[in-house]
Amino acid sequence: MAARIGALEAGGTTLVLAVGDAKGNIKEQISMPTVEPERVVPEMAQWFADKKVDAIGIGAFGPTVVNPNNPDFGKICFTPKPGWSYYDFLGNMKAGCDVPMGYDTDVNVACLGEATFGCAKGLDSVCYFTVGTGIGAGVMVGGQLLHGMLHPEAGHILLNKLPYDPGNSVCPKHTCCFEGLASGPSIEARWGAKAVDLADRDEVWELEADYIAQAIEIYVTCYSPEKVIIGGGVAHQEQIFPMIRKKFLTYLNGYLSTKELDDIDNYIVPNSLNEKQGILGCLELGRRALEG
Amino acid sequence: MAARIGALEAGGTTLVLAVGDAKGNIKEQISMPTVEPERVVPEMAQWFADKKVDAIGIGAFGPTVVNPNNPDFGKICFTPKPGWSYYDFLGNMKAGCDVPMGYDTDVNVACLGEATFGCAKGLDSVCYFTVGTGIGAGVMVGGQLLHGMLHPEAGHILLNKLPYDPGNSVCPKHTCCFEGLASGPSIEARWGAKAVDLADRDEVWELEADYIAQAIEIYVTCYSPEKVIIGGGVAHQEQIFPMIRKKFLTYLNGYLSTKELDDIDNYIVPNSLNEKQGILGCLELGRRALEG
Repeated sequence: MAARIGALEAGGTTLVLAVGDAKGNIKEQISMPTVEPERVVPEMAQWFADKKVDAIGIGAFGPTVVNPNNPDFGKICFTPKPGWSYYDFLGNMKAGCDVPMGYDTDVNVACLGEATFGCAKGLDSVCYFTVGTGIGAGVMVGGQLLHGMLHPEAGHILLNKLPYDPGNSVCPKHTCCFEGLASGPSIEARWGAKAVDLADRDEVWELEADYIAQAIEIYVTCYSPEKVIIGGGVAHQEQIFPMIRKKFLTYLNGYLSTKELDDIDNYIVPNSLNEKQGILGCLELGRRALEG
Repeated sequence: MAARIGALEAGGTTLVLAVGDAKGNIKEQISMPTVEPERVVPEMAQWFADKKVDAIGIGAFGPTVVNPNNPDFGKICFTPKPGWSYYDFLGNMKAGCDVPMGYDTDVNVACLGEATFGCAKGLDSVCYFTVGTGIGAGVMVGGQLLHGMLHPEAGHILLNKLPYDPGNSVCPKHTCCFEGLASGPSIEARWGAKAVDLADRDEVWELEADYIAQAIEIYVTCYSPEKVIIGGGVAHQEQIFPMIRKKFLTYLNGYLSTKELDDIDNYIVPNSLNEKQGILGCLELGRRALEG
């Protein structure tokens, strides 16, 4: 009988739980709000135990400790979310459902989902980032998700704030980081309306595309990915992709020459799995945990 | 009998050849200028063949193809160095000395040297960069050197050019990249003297430290390394390290909190192996190639 794999995509707002198989077929899925962990983690663990899953893959909001060699592996770091700071997420899940578990960040598992089932299938060096309420990057290097001291926090790279930008960084820590200048809240603060209601305002997307292009120049020179995938609300604004690609090539200015860059329309792309890249990545992470 | 391992550090100016053992003991070493490959590669291969080495590790100047899955693995990419563009470096070395060979960039092998024998021994996530004639980064992630489409070209990340900087980028491609603003030639162009002759000019090192600190903010948020190591001529200017650490912490502004960052004097450090990190990394790369 095929293994039953649990998938838990733990976002900052919503928790998505699913059961599926190693081929990416989801059989059942529920969701619940991300309230205090004491109220919701035992309930989630019980749900997976009731489903008799053989393994679970967890993609958690960060910052969190994802390096298995770290004694704090599976714990959430300091966070403004009530009750979650220093919470032993993985340990408490295991306490309620003792099966092999994979544990990584929400954006790393989304990257894994795209590399396993989506537009990066077959590639082993992939950069995925999401531009929404926040900006976060998931990175695969040589087939493995990038861990280190912690995990990428590449939404907080410093960019060049453009002189004609009428807004300011909304990041409380940085005056010119990517998240501060280009996240959904920064768009809303700058233009006085939500991004979805600004679709026909060219100046909004020209500016947004410029910051995203700067960030991709940095990601490409740092990670040398075989593909760059953009998720989050911005990826729904199809008109932005040609702008991003053009501005990125201008910033790179021919410094690198590869067959991937020659095919820029397939190099910088929107996410491909209809917002299921995260939960499918959790499934793959669970499968890998079962394999050991 | 212990394996005899060949090491070839192929820099843009000098080629260093050595024979040693897996423990990092170098028995013999020679060097020669980096002239056209047809004149020097067969001679180097013969030298290693005469020494009866069991394997060779090669650290090559970039850009070059370091991903073993790429059909062009071991070839140099376009380069201004006469004769080297698209040269099959690894193939021609094998033609003259058919032993297992590891092949990577000069900065990746320096990173490997530090992670195997130097100040990053025992760590598996390390960022090494050299600030000299150019700026290049070598990166270890999860114990493996970072490869992808190509390799890191993280000397060309875009930085914020400071308003009080009296100079301009010397990079022909980028108006504000790290190499353009902070390499040895940029220091010389800006201040009218070589870096080594400017040791007592505080403003030189304050500015240099700022660009390096900006770059480290980006490397730390992108790679999440357990240690950041600086090599090249700048690492000889000991007075710059306290400035770099202070400015880096200002740029990061408390966004991340880890035990490594709490010990900042041991987090951002100069290279530790007395300029032998590259050739020792080649030795380790050769050892890994022998193990297969």
